[in-house]
Amino acid sequence: MPEIRQNPATKEWVIIATERAKRPEDFITAETVKEQVPDFDEDCPFCPGHEESTPPEIMSRRLNGNWSLRVVPNKFPALIPEGEPVREKEFDLFRRMDGLGQHEVIIETPHHNASFGQISDEKALEIVTAYRERYRILSEDKRFKLVKIFRNQGKAAGTSLEHPHSQIVATPVVPLHIRHRLEEATRFYDDHGQCVFCRIIEMEMKEKDRVVMEEDGFLVIEPFAARVPFETWILPREHHATFGETTDSELRGFAKVLNRILEKFLRGLHNPAYNLVFRTAPTGDEEEEYYHWHVQIIPRLTTPAGFELGTGVYINITLPEVTAKFLRKV
Amino acid sequence: MPEIRQNPATKEWVIIATERAKRPEDFITAETVKEQVPDFDEDCPFCPGHEESTPPEIMSRRLNGNWSLRVVPNKFPALIPEGEPVREKEFDLFRRMDGLGQHEVIIETPHHNASFGQISDEKALEIVTAYRERYRILSEDKRFKLVKIFRNQGKAAGTSLEHPHSQIVATPVVPLHIRHRLEEATRFYDDHGQCVFCRIIEMEMKEKDRVVMEEDGFLVIEPFAARVPFETWILPREHHATFGETTDSELRGFAKVLNRILEKFLRGLHNPAYNLVFRTAPTGDEEEEYYHWHVQIIPRLTTPAGFELGTGVYINITLPEVTAKFLRKV
Repeated sequence: MPEIRQNPATKEWVIIATERAKRPEDFITAETVKEQVPDFDEDCPFCPGHEESTPPEIMSRRLNGNWSLRVVPNKFPALIPEGEPVREKEFDLFRRMDGLGQHEVIIETPHHNASFGQISDEKALEIVTAYRERYRILSEDKRFKLVKIFRNQGKAAGTSLEHPHSQIVATPVVPLHIRHRLEEATRFYDDHGQCVFCRIIEMEMKEKDRVVMEEDGFLVIEPFAARVPFETWILPREHHATFGETTDSELRGFAKVLNRILEKFLRGLHNPAYNLVFRTAPTGDEEEEYYHWHVQIIPRLTTPAGFELGTGVYINITLPEVTAKFLRKV
Repeated sequence: MPEIRQNPATKEWVIIATERAKRPEDFITAETVKEQVPDFDEDCPFCPGHEESTPPEIMSRRLNGNWSLRVVPNKFPALIPEGEPVREKEFDLFRRMDGLGQHEVIIETPHHNASFGQISDEKALEIVTAYRERYRILSEDKRFKLVKIFRNQGKAAGTSLEHPHSQIVATPVVPLHIRHRLEEATRFYDDHGQCVFCRIIEMEMKEKDRVVMEEDGFLVIEPFAARVPFETWILPREHHATFGETTDSELRGFAKVLNRILEKFLRGLHNPAYNLVFRTAPTGDEEEEYYHWHVQIIPRLTTPAGFELGTGVYINITLPEVTAKFLRKV
């Protein structure tokens, strides 16, 4: 019997289609990173010696003249830091504005083949520290309403460049999709006097079935209404509305847990394509009680089709309880 | 300079990233249907002679014992017509219900390689008539709140079967994604006393830049805030909230226009993968003034990545005015 589940934080329904059920092992792909990818690629714009291929550096970490991490503007930015966030309207119907914003690339490492899950926890900390630094700086620009950190790994996840990198986009609007999520979280807070994510953490730790790991102040779960097989959330146990408020000691725990879960993905699923996105409150909402930053990892092992596009409801062919058990064992 | 545009019907923002601009010709793929796909496939469960591979027929069109169209339950249904739409809640947090609904497949033709764009208008009419018949019947079941017709073409669009087919899913809930769209349409109606889609039709016909074709009572446009290259809408000029209300003469025009635009896709873009989804008001809302059924075609020429998943904002690398011009000329 299929089951329909509701994400308590967003109120989105998900169909768990048990009639199509796949076992976690069925998702293992043939590829493995280590065997196929070299440490250096002559044609890669992010490899050392090709620094001229990127726009001028925004920041970097260097030791003895060699960089270990660089942040550069995206060469083909979705948004640029020019123009004004002024709405224009045509025929009293078609609203548009300048593509104002900022679009940065974090080149995580000089090594072409050293991604999360294959690096030391210290190196992971260097990367997430750069995330936090850029997040904080971009958040202070009053023209920007949301600072979104994300990471695309693998062709199926929409990335064109193999070299380990993340991206940050600052937008001049709070997207509708985000606003709806904030509204639902606020409504939960109104009803219960508690942040919905704090409640999820409490209940998942009690139920245990969907917990992948819990350490260093972070809980990793396969969410109750997982949209796709192996959808994974990393939740800080400490309540902060935005990632920018993370303390140094929390950041150290986060780096370790993030590195560990992506190692599980790499080992258990043989380097699946995935998108990793930070969920965080809009800028200026740092003090809010109702939102709670977290990270979502969305593996691209299945292809959403017409039903998903037309209803927003995902059909998931694997129970999160089953994928959680699989990942715990890896 | 990138531009941010808002969909007037949904209030969703889209980034038109001109810095990454591609020409329409850049999306042409190497494949063509006619050369590669045979009329009959021994292994296809939908080809004639393999009727035993599907669950028992719901309906069919037959002449002299040969079928020209069959409707069958999906063998691996997302939802099944059993159970009750009763919500259960665990820990006062995790809400679930039975996977009640219906999931049907319309096998459009006995020919393995005869899809929209390659068939006669009469044949197209037969298919959309079956859509309407099943739509009407499923809409009458009080347990179902939304009847969604969609069609996945090509691997990139998530289909596993090549044989021309469409799907219908009846759901026991109105998904959040749909509810938000209805709310925005209602708000527009409140503000303007006019259906937002009627207004879009009026303005697009005045502006002309995004119109692909206009005939037989239907307008085909590349929408102002197109999320992906070649996103295409087919709008009936006559206001009806749901597809079920379409009259016979309107249906004839719709079949022709649908067949014509998909022929343009086939010829101009060499058989791109796409999802086609019907947008229609929930069941019971047939009399509404504020919603206006239409069809969206969403080609899968690009891959949405972390930014899209994390913000709901699409980055489109081609202007709809440019793709409209291209399609007008095909």
